[in-house]
Amino acid sequence: MQVGLLIIASEVLDGKVADTNTQTLSLFLRSHHLELSQTLTVRDHPAAIHQGLDFLFQACQLVITSGGLGPTPDDLTKAAIATFLQRKIIFSSAAMQVAQENYQRFDRVFPGKEHGYSFLPEHFMALPNSAGYAPGLYGADGNRLIFSAPGVPREFRAMLEDHLIKLLSPQLKGSKFLDAIVIRTSKIPEEKIFGELDTKLWQKLESFGEVSSLPVISGVDIVVKTSSDSEAGLELKRQGIDKILQASPLKSYIWHLGAESLEQVIVTRAISKNIRFGFAESATGGLCSHRITNVAGSSSVFMGSVISYAEAVKTSELGVDAASMATHGVVSQATAEAMARGLATHLKLDLAVSITGYAGPGGGSADKPVGTVCIGLWYQGQLSSQQLRFYGDREQLKNRFAQAALMALLEAMAENA
Amino acid sequence: MQVGLLIIASEVLDGKVADTNTQTLSLFLRSHHLELSQTLTVRDHPAAIHQGLDFLFQACQLVITSGGLGPTPDDLTKAAIATFLQRKIIFSSAAMQVAQENYQRFDRVFPGKEHGYSFLPEHFMALPNSAGYAPGLYGADGNRLIFSAPGVPREFRAMLEDHLIKLLSPQLKGSKFLDAIVIRTSKIPEEKIFGELDTKLWQKLESFGEVSSLPVISGVDIVVKTSSDSEAGLELKRQGIDKILQASPLKSYIWHLGAESLEQVIVTRAISKNIRFGFAESATGGLCSHRITNVAGSSSVFMGSVISYAEAVKTSELGVDAASMATHGVVSQATAEAMARGLATHLKLDLAVSITGYAGPGGGSADKPVGTVCIGLWYQGQLSSQQLRFYGDREQLKNRFAQAALMALLEAMAENA
Repeated sequence: MQVGLLIIASEVLDGKVADTNTQTLSLFLRSHHLELSQTLTVRDHPAAIHQGLDFLFQACQLVITSGGLGPTPDDLTKAAIATFLQRKIIFSSAAMQVAQENYQRFDRVFPGKEHGYSFLPEHFMALPNSAGYAPGLYGADGNRLIFSAPGVPREFRAMLEDHLIKLLSPQLKGSKFLDAIVIRTSKIPEEKIFGELDTKLWQKLESFGEVSSLPVISGVDIVVKTSSDSEAGLELKRQGIDKILQASPLKSYIWHLGAESLEQVIVTRAISKNIRFGFAESATGGLCSHRITNVAGSSSVFMGSVISYAEAVKTSELGVDAASMATHGVVSQATAEAMARGLATHLKLDLAVSITGYAGPGGGSADKPVGTVCIGLWYQGQLSSQQLRFYGDREQLKNRFAQAALMALLEAMAENA
Repeated sequence: MQVGLLIIASEVLDGKVADTNTQTLSLFLRSHHLELSQTLTVRDHPAAIHQGLDFLFQACQLVITSGGLGPTPDDLTKAAIATFLQRKIIFSSAAMQVAQENYQRFDRVFPGKEHGYSFLPEHFMALPNSAGYAPGLYGADGNRLIFSAPGVPREFRAMLEDHLIKLLSPQLKGSKFLDAIVIRTSKIPEEKIFGELDTKLWQKLESFGEVSSLPVISGVDIVVKTSSDSEAGLELKRQGIDKILQASPLKSYIWHLGAESLEQVIVTRAISKNIRFGFAESATGGLCSHRITNVAGSSSVFMGSVISYAEAVKTSELGVDAASMATHGVVSQATAEAMARGLATHLKLDLAVSITGYAGPGGGSADKPVGTVCIGLWYQGQLSSQQLRFYGDREQLKNRFAQAALMALLEAMAENA
């Protein structure tokens, strides 16, 4: 089944918010062995919505719309769908009931049946919304299906989880099992992998499905999309790919086989090795800790961090010697090591990672320009550090610094196997 | 000028990465008084790229493409453009030179002129890429324009900044000045604003341009898009909107007039009032500090934070009494206040904000379920706290907790004016 997403959201095209519903939908579809064909984002204008529906239905059997179901005059999705399908908008007691119950649940007074929430295109059904007020809707035109959910990420997700697969079950019988196998590498550029390192690799992987290669912040991810009629068939393909990788020189650049994030891999490894860790963060400003604590279960190994943004805090909370900082510089391997040691001692950690660098736009010096970062590592009494140089704006540099620090943390846990 | 963005990226449709280029482009265009009409994301398949170009050119004079310019076999953009315009792909010494110089800049060996980087559709020009290897391209077909940039966010952005406006200058003469005025509110739901609070507000604002209303994590943002033939004309419209807001009961719910983020507003206010602050973060795990340190210049007021994820760290680094935690609970107003006081004392702050809560999926209790958070505030010796309840998954709860903590910080600085 070809699935298209129509995002109705001027706010995305104005740069006010970044769309997250595409990712939510694609991960949801994949977990049900489906995939997203395309996503179109249009403004909250009737003609744009109409053209969008028309375009997506040329290739897709199911169009999911996001947004434009709310109560304000710029919410035009239902009217646009009705016009597109040449149907009337009618009062729906089911829709009114959904909205009314949602108002009760949130302890709010229902505005009455004249309210826009109570109206739907003819022959559409109202879908309960467990995370907000507006009912979703679902309907068909011949064998073309429309599923409309609110654009608020939490409501969009709830709507998918609560209804989509149930509604599609008649269409989904007998479909294939899909998987995307992710080979996560670091420290080798994209074209070297398929060039001098292993010229046959792409071709070999292609015998299992569609191959794509993607530079990401951690390095290069190679994705192989496979399908099979059964879960057992998928498993055989996974084993075949693993065998090829074991025999390839790429093997030593692979830090993970699977779609998990770096922080998930770190937490899993720390739990299995019972390593309690934390960060002394300066230039990353909390980002390392934030990423780790996004992982459920991280609290059993992540003890805490000190964000020592000001020099005085590096001294008072981490015990970094002020004179040594003046000599070596705040951004130096000596300071990074002192920060890591101080943190490990104060927080009684097995492993401490420190980050001190210049994220810009101000700061830096001729020999240590903006983009320079020193990463320190204290692991069961052993100190080490490295100095690296990255490029980008402030947020990009924070991301790159944090990525390098997390990668250093993962490697430290691997080396001391 | 109508501008469309074609994102060529299977990885986005597979949920592997979230697109950020739409936001980069829309903010870039807006800063040059242009706007983005629509964004279409397609897979790395020749037919899908072809259809995407065809669709976007029905409404747009300029199509910007992102992605598919790299060196691997799934990079198909140039071939698809050539097919779409019925042109040949030819060797371009200018393209080769761009790629060659990029290789030199990054100290890498150029793979030779047969490399895909050296080829372009006929009558297209190669664009230097200051942030990566692959040349961009620019060409026309009648009055339709195509601008192609790599999909890597840093390269996409550099390509826009380095080339786009210069290339478009002949087309941009005499265009209008645009602005989007953002009215940022909190603590009042969308439909109350335009319902019982101020029934005429939408209509009044509409006399200045297109109005839209957007629920965001901080509350509701109302956006008024205006245009004028001059900067002075725009300024008059801004003043008119401000006058309407001053007279509206919405006034007391507005926390900011402008597109700045909450963290930017906080840093600006803290600088103007010379308030040095920091966080004692538990459930938010570093997110508050991360958001604040995304703001350039934050280091003059943000001193640092303690992320006290483990109870032992709350005691050792913040001096929270273990017995009191056992009595009141780790998630309690008493613990939140003790954390804030401890942080302020240790870090010598004017203002300390603490966060302790249950972000889930585990944890919580019958009377304090997952989603409960306590926020403590220490401001020049005065302690206060609040307990709040939110809904969502782990990441959503972290976001909501952080948002509430930052809003409390902003309000504290306002009240003590």
